[in-house]
Amino acid sequence: MPSRLIAHLAHVEVLSSKPADSVAFYTEVLGLERSGEEGTSTYLRGWGEWDHHSLVVTEAEAPGLGHIGWRMLSPEHLDQAVARVQERGVDGEWVDGSVGHGPAFRFRGPGGHQHELLWETERYVPPPELVSPYPNRPQAYRPRGIAPRQLDHVTVMTGDPLADAYWYRDTLGYVFTEYTVLDEAEIPVFSMLTNNEKSHDLGLVIDQSAMPGRLHHVSYWVDSRDELLRAADILMNCDAGVEFGPGRHGMGEQDYLYTREPGGVRVEVNTGGYRLYRPDWETLRWTPSQGSNVFYRNLPMPDTMMEGAPHVDFSAPEDGTANPWQAASVH
Amino acid sequence: MPSRLIAHLAHVEVLSSKPADSVAFYTEVLGLERSGEEGTSTYLRGWGEWDHHSLVVTEAEAPGLGHIGWRMLSPEHLDQAVARVQERGVDGEWVDGSVGHGPAFRFRGPGGHQHELLWETERYVPPPELVSPYPNRPQAYRPRGIAPRQLDHVTVMTGDPLADAYWYRDTLGYVFTEYTVLDEAEIPVFSMLTNNEKSHDLGLVIDQSAMPGRLHHVSYWVDSRDELLRAADILMNCDAGVEFGPGRHGMGEQDYLYTREPGGVRVEVNTGGYRLYRPDWETLRWTPSQGSNVFYRNLPMPDTMMEGAPHVDFSAPEDGTANPWQAASVH
Amino acid sequence: MPSRLIAHLAHVEVLSSKPADSVAFYTEVLGLERSGEEGTSTYLRGWGEWDHHSLVVTEAEAPGLGHIGWRMLSPEHLDQAVARVQERGVDGEWVDGSVGHGPAFRFRGPGGHQHELLWETERYVPPPELVSPYPNRPQAYRPRGIAPRQLDHVTVMTGDPLADAYWYRDTLGYVFTEYTVLDEAEIPVFSMLTNNEKSHDLGLVIDQSAMPGRLHHVSYWVDSRDELLRAADILMNCDAGVEFGPGRHGMGEQDYLYTREPGGVRVEVNTGGYRLYRPDWETLRWTPSQGSNVFYRNLPMPDTMMEGAPHVDFSAPEDGTANPWQAASVH
Amino acid sequence: MPSRLIAHLAHVEVLSSKPADSVAFYTEVLGLERSGEEGTSTYLRGWGEWDHHSLVVTEAEAPGLGHIGWRMLSPEHLDQAVARVQERGVDGEWVDGSVGHGPAFRFRGPGGHQHELLWETERYVPPPELVSPYPNRPQAYRPRGIAPRQLDHVTVMTGDPLADAYWYRDTLGYVFTEYTVLDEAEIPVFSMLTNNEKSHDLGLVIDQSAMPGRLHHVSYWVDSRDELLRAADILMNCDAGVEFGPGRHGMGEQDYLYTREPGGVRVEVNTGGYRLYRPDWETLRWTPSQGSNVFYRNLPMPDTMMEGAPHVDFSAPEDGTANPWQAASVH
Repeated sequence: MPSRLIAHLAHVEVLSSKPADSVAFYTEVLGLERSGEEGTSTYLRGWGEWDHHSLVVTEAEAPGLGHIGWRMLSPEHLDQAVARVQERGVDGEWVDGSVGHGPAFRFRGPGGHQHELLWETERYVPPPELVSPYPNRPQAYRPRGIAPRQLDHVTVMTGDPLADAYWYRDTLGYVFTEYTVLDEAEIPVFSMLTNNEKSHDLGLVIDQSAMPGRLHHVSYWVDSRDELLRAADILMNCDAGVEFGPGRHGMGEQDYLYTREPGGVRVEVNTGGYRLYRPDWETLRWTPSQGSNVFYRNLPMPDTMMEGAPHVDFSAPEDGTANPWQAASVH
Repeated sequence: MPSRLIAHLAHVEVLSSKPADSVAFYTEVLGLERSGEEGTSTYLRGWGEWDHHSLVVTEAEAPGLGHIGWRMLSPEHLDQAVARVQERGVDGEWVDGSVGHGPAFRFRGPGGHQHELLWETERYVPPPELVSPYPNRPQAYRPRGIAPRQLDHVTVMTGDPLADAYWYRDTLGYVFTEYTVLDEAEIPVFSMLTNNEKSHDLGLVIDQSAMPGRLHHVSYWVDSRDELLRAADILMNCDAGVEFGPGRHGMGEQDYLYTREPGGVRVEVNTGGYRLYRPDWETLRWTPSQGSNVFYRNLPMPDTMMEGAPHVDFSAPEDGTANPWQAASVH
Repeated sequence: MPSRLIAHLAHVEVLSSKPADSVAFYTEVLGLERSGEEGTSTYLRGWGEWDHHSLVVTEAEAPGLGHIGWRMLSPEHLDQAVARVQERGVDGEWVDGSVGHGPAFRFRGPGGHQHELLWETERYVPPPELVSPYPNRPQAYRPRGIAPRQLDHVTVMTGDPLADAYWYRDTLGYVFTEYTVLDEAEIPVFSMLTNNEKSHDLGLVIDQSAMPGRLHHVSYWVDSRDELLRAADILMNCDAGVEFGPGRHGMGEQDYLYTREPGGVRVEVNTGGYRLYRPDWETLRWTPSQGSNVFYRNLPMPDTMMEGAPHVDFSAPEDGTANPWQAASVH
Repeated sequence: MPSRLIAHLAHVEVLSSKPADSVAFYTEVLGLERSGEEGTSTYLRGWGEWDHHSLVVTEAEAPGLGHIGWRMLSPEHLDQAVARVQERGVDGEWVDGSVGHGPAFRFRGPGGHQHELLWETERYVPPPELVSPYPNRPQAYRPRGIAPRQLDHVTVMTGDPLADAYWYRDTLGYVFTEYTVLDEAEIPVFSMLTNNEKSHDLGLVIDQSAMPGRLHHVSYWVDSRDELLRAADILMNCDAGVEFGPGRHGMGEQDYLYTREPGGVRVEVNTGGYRLYRPDWETLRWTPSQGSNVFYRNLPMPDTMMEGAPHVDFSAPEDGTANPWQAASVH
């Protein structure tokens, strides 16, 4: 296993067929700040983030994942990471600087998701009216909507969450923290990996469609469980509603709620969780009955939580194949 | 600057002339778990900690710091760190395994504080009645007293918080996150360093006594601001009381309260704060009027907060020398 | 409608076939204080309560309700209330002073539940070690277990929650705050009444068994939503677990969790909610799809929540009668 | 002592020489809803309030109190209350219906503050876009600024807080809950009275100026201690800042923060506190050293907290009279 290469999840690009509505949700309901626009993309960030953006909303025919950007620990770590990806036989390409950052190496992970590894970033510079009164905040706190502090993690869908987790661990130095199999069969349905103290910055949910590269959700962080409940109240008072939660996952001990933005992409608001400092963490295995998904062990997960973006309808397969993850309480 | 070498603050040994009273405070009021005893030392830990202990209470004639233990990222990082300390001309010595961990390299930092660098640790194994129902918790949650999850940081006193901060940064790869000087003079009175996402695991407060190696406080983490207020209520309902707080520091954006255990050592309970993920963090400079100590900028810090352990009385110097840090709102 | 007669819910007597286990739960897990014993009854109270007790645990062959005690606004209000009950054709009887209070008028409400109206109460006097440092608290705060501040409400089961609510309103001056009918039929399944600013101190859940006087749950109040989550964690770390919640009801806007004590009686921990100050409150009508039970409108209620004490099994009626409240999300 | 006559504090009229700035603060920073305008007055309310308004901002030459409105329990209680005021030899007059309510009896209380007793009120009707998805909320929740749920209490200044408290108790049936005298002399500096479960809806702070009828502060309620901290952060990120707090008073066990709106009127945001249900509550006496003002007993109150509206400068009396309340930690 390589040692750590990645500093943190830098940004996620989501696709929307209703970009104006999606951006309105992200800015007015979720409460992100708008930091740029180019072409059909809008750039957004949480008030506690130092870089130019953490979310890109790009117009497309269907909701989905554009790409995931990872900032490396240093230029040297970027080079090492690129070499390691190539050693694994994965093609990739360097793209010149984009909005908010410098050169990036683009490649597809094992589940078909587009990733971007980068070092150089553009520091966010607030306009005068948003200069923080405190030196350790990148901008003034503006309590518009839910107002999360920062991007927390991204969760994608893949045919084999366990094999993919090993790939990310062995290729790019992610710590593989936890996974869950079904109670009734050794089928892994959800894995979590991290580059930090948090339980995960990358989640992998099982996908039984044939479509690679689907997105499960993007998650933004609020500072407290009380703010999470306030977020839920905000969502219940607009069209969005709350798909699942507020509740707590056993895995990661994360307090969560899930909603959908108008384009169909699932957005989580999360908080809480343990903090991982052990350098020799050993991957933990769960089953749903232990509370992997629902810490309180007293709830089913709504079926809609099994949908991804783009949406694939395979609920009634002609050959009657059982869908193992429908029964699972995936995280 | 070296890259990161230390995984996390592992443990702090505090000295007490009333060890039985101190241990009673740590177990019944603070709510730590007792995990061992040897000689005149008692070993304690928070319920969320994976290793054998994070606090050692050792009998002594006066309150103070025994030593600070740091767990390294790997055996190789331990070797590198030892070499770097020695290169800086600091003597040290290897000590054989102690309670709860393997061989450690002991040396004194620039302010005279005893440190211990180590890799091998003994994993905590709960007795049957304390086995957690969840795979990702080292033991069952027991809500006795304040019940903090884990050790957060240690703050020591030193003659030159700025010079020492550079030493820790340049020798051992700490990130030097923030410091404050007085408003009226460029005198650094408090510095913070970290090896993690948190703002600091090591704090340095100015000390104008001639005594090296003094301790300012040890801090344990609770999960929420609401639990911090509950902790304050618990302390107000026993002899301990609350020396300062509950409140919020600007530096680190940490919510705090301070109390004293019966032996005289100051104990903080903290929560909140930003999370540092940027690999190119630049050290931030504050003044008290910006809220370095008191985020709300509307409070003085009590004079007693300037005391350390052991206690040194130099409040009325014969030569009438002004004591610059009495006026400062150090963190 | 009479004007207000009752000051507050004074106490609830619950029956247990395992009184020692039940008392151990109430004192060690819930964290009530023990204030007396007599015969097969144990008397308990929350740390914020001024009177001798708010809960009586009495040995019996099956779990259930002993009686509910209500303290009146004054001796004159007690006399008026007794007269009104008698005017409604309900027999009752005066019982001499019992443990912790003076003479009480006992009668059965329309659903067969035993009530007690009283004025004189014995003020709780803490032992020296429990004297509060604050004049406005009846005892020192002791953070043992969940440590709720006080009794909040009691919810009983009855054949007609709507008719009973009118009876309590018209006879004893309760404010009938809210009720819910099913979405699919105008069948009232839950009603709430209050004598205070809170949404309810008496709840009425539909009961389709033939057994009168059954208990649904007793609820204790904690000060914050964060303490409610802490309560859930405590319960998950002991045998009790959490039957339903933590969540929020739409009715009363109450944050809740439900568990069972070892004798089988359901215990709620609650917090939050609106505060009712309007003197001309008009009874509100809900349906489950509006969120009467689940504020977030995204959860079913577990079937076990339809059980009462004593337990009556009528889930498979021979005549195949549909059980309307199984489908309902009763509060 | 009469029994209870008043249902609740209905509204407070504050005077401002900068009404546009004041209204901007109340709507954008505090987050009240605007419900009307007439003449030089603007009418405002919290999102959880059922009546037309709870705050009136009226243009005037100096900041201060216009009047305080109290809603009675019934028309009969209104008549009784008027008779009682007149029996005490206090002149008053009936005023015809004003914006948002019907006929009101106006009189000056013992400290010279204008009060209004009323029964008929206009129910708030939300515009279509603000209709709540829940039957038990008067409007949709809109998270603009601090967004308090409702008016909590008003605190005025008077020459004799103890004598005035007796007057309100004996004339209008307020419960006189708590008061504090100085530690060094039996001088009452703060009294609290209530008509509800809360510790106070009317506070009385000592005033040593010769000017009658001054205002100390108006307080709005948020649902949690976490929301109070969020409120403080919002205020620190705009010009308002935080004058005192966030903290907890011993009296009422209220969590508080104080700020000033642009016109100079002090505004509190509060939460927490005990709930008073006892019908035979006995008035409690405190001293500051017990924590009457600062629950944690470790803070002085800023001198500016002794200022009222209108501002009267008598800090340097020519005759050198000691100002007893400067030393006091009044609530």
